[in-house]
Amino acid sequence: MAKIRMGMVGGGEGAFIGQVHRYAAALDSEIELVCGAFSSNPEKSQRSGKALHLPADRVYSSYQEMMTKELELPADQRMQFVSIVTPNHMHFPVAKAALEAGFHVFSDKPATFDLKEALELRELVKKHDKLFGLTHTYSGYPMVKEARHQVATGELGKITKVVVEYPQGWLASPEGEEENKQAAWRLNPEQAGISCCMGDIGVHAAHLAEYITGLKISEVCSDLGSVVDGRVLDDDGTVLLRFENGARGVLMASQVSVGEENALKIRAYGDQGGLEWSQQEPNTLWLKWSDRPTQMYRTGLPYVCELAAANTRTPNGHPEGYLEAFANLYMAFAGQIRALENGVEPDARSADCPGIEEAVRGMAFIELTVHASNSEQKWHKFPNH
Amino acid sequence: MAKIRMGMVGGGEGAFIGQVHRYAAALDSEIELVCGAFSSNPEKSQRSGKALHLPADRVYSSYQEMMTKELELPADQRMQFVSIVTPNHMHFPVAKAALEAGFHVFSDKPATFDLKEALELRELVKKHDKLFGLTHTYSGYPMVKEARHQVATGELGKITKVVVEYPQGWLASPEGEEENKQAAWRLNPEQAGISCCMGDIGVHAAHLAEYITGLKISEVCSDLGSVVDGRVLDDDGTVLLRFENGARGVLMASQVSVGEENALKIRAYGDQGGLEWSQQEPNTLWLKWSDRPTQMYRTGLPYVCELAAANTRTPNGHPEGYLEAFANLYMAFAGQIRALENGVEPDARSADCPGIEEAVRGMAFIELTVHASNSEQKWHKFPNH
Amino acid sequence: MAKIRMGMVGGGEGAFIGQVHRYAAALDSEIELVCGAFSSNPEKSQRSGKALHLPADRVYSSYQEMMTKELELPADQRMQFVSIVTPNHMHFPVAKAALEAGFHVFSDKPATFDLKEALELRELVKKHDKLFGLTHTYSGYPMVKEARHQVATGELGKITKVVVEYPQGWLASPEGEEENKQAAWRLNPEQAGISCCMGDIGVHAAHLAEYITGLKISEVCSDLGSVVDGRVLDDDGTVLLRFENGARGVLMASQVSVGEENALKIRAYGDQGGLEWSQQEPNTLWLKWSDRPTQMYRTGLPYVCELAAANTRTPNGHPEGYLEAFANLYMAFAGQIRALENGVEPDARSADCPGIEEAVRGMAFIELTVHASNSEQKWHKFPNH
Amino acid sequence: MAKIRMGMVGGGEGAFIGQVHRYAAALDSEIELVCGAFSSNPEKSQRSGKALHLPADRVYSSYQEMMTKELELPADQRMQFVSIVTPNHMHFPVAKAALEAGFHVFSDKPATFDLKEALELRELVKKHDKLFGLTHTYSGYPMVKEARHQVATGELGKITKVVVEYPQGWLASPEGEEENKQAAWRLNPEQAGISCCMGDIGVHAAHLAEYITGLKISEVCSDLGSVVDGRVLDDDGTVLLRFENGARGVLMASQVSVGEENALKIRAYGDQGGLEWSQQEPNTLWLKWSDRPTQMYRTGLPYVCELAAANTRTPNGHPEGYLEAFANLYMAFAGQIRALENGVEPDARSADCPGIEEAVRGMAFIELTVHASNSEQKWHKFPNH
Repeated sequence: MAKIRMGMVGGGEGAFIGQVHRYAAALDSEIELVCGAFSSNPEKSQRSGKALHLPADRVYSSYQEMMTKELELPADQRMQFVSIVTPNHMHFPVAKAALEAGFHVFSDKPATFDLKEALELRELVKKHDKLFGLTHTYSGYPMVKEARHQVATGELGKITKVVVEYPQGWLASPEGEEENKQAAWRLNPEQAGISCCMGDIGVHAAHLAEYITGLKISEVCSDLGSVVDGRVLDDDGTVLLRFENGARGVLMASQVSVGEENALKIRAYGDQGGLEWSQQEPNTLWLKWSDRPTQMYRTGLPYVCELAAANTRTPNGHPEGYLEAFANLYMAFAGQIRALENGVEPDARSADCPGIEEAVRGMAFIELTVHASNSEQKWHKFPNH
Repeated sequence: MAKIRMGMVGGGEGAFIGQVHRYAAALDSEIELVCGAFSSNPEKSQRSGKALHLPADRVYSSYQEMMTKELELPADQRMQFVSIVTPNHMHFPVAKAALEAGFHVFSDKPATFDLKEALELRELVKKHDKLFGLTHTYSGYPMVKEARHQVATGELGKITKVVVEYPQGWLASPEGEEENKQAAWRLNPEQAGISCCMGDIGVHAAHLAEYITGLKISEVCSDLGSVVDGRVLDDDGTVLLRFENGARGVLMASQVSVGEENALKIRAYGDQGGLEWSQQEPNTLWLKWSDRPTQMYRTGLPYVCELAAANTRTPNGHPEGYLEAFANLYMAFAGQIRALENGVEPDARSADCPGIEEAVRGMAFIELTVHASNSEQKWHKFPNH
Repeated sequence: MAKIRMGMVGGGEGAFIGQVHRYAAALDSEIELVCGAFSSNPEKSQRSGKALHLPADRVYSSYQEMMTKELELPADQRMQFVSIVTPNHMHFPVAKAALEAGFHVFSDKPATFDLKEALELRELVKKHDKLFGLTHTYSGYPMVKEARHQVATGELGKITKVVVEYPQGWLASPEGEEENKQAAWRLNPEQAGISCCMGDIGVHAAHLAEYITGLKISEVCSDLGSVVDGRVLDDDGTVLLRFENGARGVLMASQVSVGEENALKIRAYGDQGGLEWSQQEPNTLWLKWSDRPTQMYRTGLPYVCELAAANTRTPNGHPEGYLEAFANLYMAFAGQIRALENGVEPDARSADCPGIEEAVRGMAFIELTVHASNSEQKWHKFPNH
Repeated sequence: MAKIRMGMVGGGEGAFIGQVHRYAAALDSEIELVCGAFSSNPEKSQRSGKALHLPADRVYSSYQEMMTKELELPADQRMQFVSIVTPNHMHFPVAKAALEAGFHVFSDKPATFDLKEALELRELVKKHDKLFGLTHTYSGYPMVKEARHQVATGELGKITKVVVEYPQGWLASPEGEEENKQAAWRLNPEQAGISCCMGDIGVHAAHLAEYITGLKISEVCSDLGSVVDGRVLDDDGTVLLRFENGARGVLMASQVSVGEENALKIRAYGDQGGLEWSQQEPNTLWLKWSDRPTQMYRTGLPYVCELAAANTRTPNGHPEGYLEAFANLYMAFAGQIRALENGVEPDARSADCPGIEEAVRGMAFIELTVHASNSEQKWHKFPNH
């Protein structure tokens, strides 16, 4: 049984998320990077590929070339899936080309440039009957899976309140914005789409809330804004939520909260108990009760649920982090590919990976919150797609 | 120089906040409880007074009797101010009677039953030229004063974002609601007014935000609700804020967040730095910066501002808590009385106590958030009174 | 029923611990400061007394005068107990005079200048049949009482390991040592006795370990030292412990751990569970288990033991601190006086106050650790007295 | 430039640390596992190799076979170094065989079965002029490197006190000891050597203290014991330390502290400042000062030292953990191999990996603490080797 073969589009020199994808894909030695189109600049793509120990003939000058050339290779050598790590506006074209060429797609989020593309992408996935995975990384943490499990078993009772927040501070100052490659494209509507803050991090928070509670957001009241003068896109926002079961919620996302790092945190309360999880201390899950002491659940201990255990690599007390969570998504997606090859259903661990439905919901969330923020009306329905 | 003499209305057997007021007033040995009308039930009032070591002739059957009888005593024996610790609906009648009888008033919050009463109260305070203090206790903490100082000095730059949250869980379940004296009156519109959650704790959060930032709230978008079926008043709510300088904010208050205790927390961000303070660990203030490590400010250390230092009793590392914060308000109010007697201006420490303007703003906040929550329109102006 | 009447020796202007005692005694309005000899300087004593609102004729120029004059007052006016808040070398003379004059004694720790005095003090207490209380303040915290309860009920199993640490940093630098009144006497062998660090804080740590575990220390191996050049007394030390049941332990105390405040912390492990408590976050007690999640016990919640509940003043989430813990000892001692007056046994809360046996053990601990530190031999028995 | 080629001895099915080594080696895609002798049971070794996607002819039945067969391969295909992940008693035989066959060695700790072997190993490393690396993993964390940097720059002043603790709880109960592969060999003197607790974790703590402070331990006073009845080897111990500059220290290690996970923590104090780092929250380093607020240093922020930055993969706020720290050692060792091949000196990052001198000191520490624990004499010199 060979490793699963991955090609990559984007992620050349100086990129952030491409390297993160490579760490995550490599960690478990189950996936092998076999080719890439790392940059639309052919020389840069070659330099990147060389640094990654790839043979020159598997480093391409464009994603189109990559699709074509890989198809010419024997089936047991060619890549099996494409990892897309470009800025947002290129997600869809690459995904489309890959699906049409018969490759599975594993994409960075948000899935597409806008909702329209996401809906089209869903059609393409169905039509070509390929796998699609989306890196809502934070759902890869074991304690997030435990949180979902605690809600699903009913331990917390009926969920009545959800507070999810995602403050960052890295865009608080306009200085250096243009030189900073990460900032530049996220603030550029031609590359990022109609939102910076909601598109980059708010959508993670929304996914996390739905993933853990198992509930869909049904209505929003939105207040987005640009704290730094002159920005076209939002760099801060708060969204009041209603969930399909009537629960209230608040989603806060900010890129201008000076001194905050990547402080994604969620609290969910039911009528019997509550939970709290923070991304910066990801191996702890707090469970709170009305009638007994708060409990500290920890990654790697015997009492956690099967899915949490299956997504854990080290013994308790040996902290796992962001790359391990990211790798959990890659392992799930690789498991889906193997299951498909073997003609079986993926197991629970492999099935547990955001896909095309999450892609559509995420793009709908971004468009809805921007639209609702511009409205004088308080509440706006989350559309069904 | 004798101690300042205090009378109390309310706070008989089984009450919570009355006993807290007595601890706070006693701590510094600068204030003496000399009389009280602890209950509208004369026997209960007497029993309460006896347990407090008061002579029987200074324990009264009604607040009206207290005002009358105390006035008959020599000026150097009679009470100098009245501490009001009744349920909300009785705040105004007692305060009015006290002011008209020539006594200063120190009142539990919210100041009155509704905004109309608060505006009338302000007229009475002016007319009778008496002192009025209001127990927004959380502004009594040294590190809250340090936070205010950090904003005021401009260290954080222009404030752009404020997040204040106040989750509790004690009203999450309807069971025992009627037997619980604290719950019963807060959920009863005849005693509490038009709001439970906003009136009881949201108003604290709003005051804290304005106190620390030095900014007034100028607009709100409000979403209040009753999570537990059958309640007339809100037990949970989120309010989006705008401040007078354009800053965005979020205020969350909840009495149904199971497992939360009294988790008031505020974060404020400027374009240069941010701060974070949590009531349950009140001796720590976090200062966050874009370009240097986060700092942990601690009560009692030499670098804190004068006002923080003046409101601290123990050396650093010897934790102070809620009662010390509460006592700081009593000490400030007692200082105002002494200054008035001596015909001087109160010093900075004494002047630093919420008063009649905070009383009016608080009642306006409560009415505004209830009104705005019932509206389809998103934003509502905070009225000037 | 009148308040309990207290006289004070020491604690004049500029003192630290005297004021702390006064806050603690005043908090519950059950004890009244009626007289004092606040300084051996008569003018300073008078100034201090005046600032405390005492009549001039109850402010004395010496403790001897205080004993004599108070005895001349009617029994229902004279002080009932003496609070001793002088430097160590004056504890015994004052206590002796008070006991011989028929007053109960409530003393700051360590009880005496040396062990010899402590043994003599014990004889005096017995001979005069008076009450003696000792301010091992940290045992006054509700969560410390809960910790003791958890051990006593056997929940943790047989105790096998105890780690107690007490780092401070305030003596890390020799600068300002002489001007700092607190530092000056603690480092002066004529006032402090044979130890600074062990006498000032190590003895608190030892008491806390014995109080919580219910076990006596049976052997020590000691390593004390003066980190700052030129000091005669220790400013840092570690002591290996054996307890009577065979459990191992470590006691660390330091006054030169730069940046530490008053970081007393204890961990105790049994064969079934462990506990952890930190003085700087005193309202939380961690209980750790081999087979289930760590639990966070919190002051004021319904599940805590009776003694913890009885020593709590505010609802959960309203933090109590050092002064409340201190006041708990005063309340216990006042309860003992009332019980004695009423000819009944003190209730559990009142009985729970360190007394003369803890005084003797504390002084024995200090002498033993200094002696053992100077020895080449590893282990030294804790003597029975 | 190809990846560095690694062979592995040990780490077959059911092993813990072998899999950790493989994650760590794979993460950066700079090292390739090319062969292994995963078990002394040939079938088990083959099964393990197959699961790792290795060709059958690179999976060996013994380490001796591996050395022989790999040498027969062309130089650009054969492994370049051997990773040793067996129980302790097999470290030396494998390392010796590898060195004699001309392979570099990267070994799990402790380096050997006893000190005698470690000294012999040092001779072999010198004689064969090969590289030797040792996985004192915790020195791989970026914030540990920052801590070392802060001491080295003199910011903390002269180091006067070090407290390093390493509590675990997994061996608190004798139940299941024999079935638990990890427990069984660590408690067996024929496989583990003369110590369990000091050999397994105490030696990590000692290395961490020396690595961060840059100071050598010069004397110890040791108290080891077996808390669980019937154990031949220690499962708990405390060691008092002196460092070469006169600083005092305490090292605590325990495997019977119920409920503790892997709670390695170090505090070091100088006369100007102190530091604190905890392995379970590894991305934070606390710096404490006598005259200004405590600072929270965080992984990935611009102010950290070059070596910390070079050992960081993700942006601040994206937590890194144990596997990343482990991978840092692998990357350093791989860097040493590349530098050697290129005939240059390794850069600072590559040079920063524990080696043969740390191997000898570690074994000396283990033997010294066992010896000193059995002695009636308090202090014992740390021998120079």
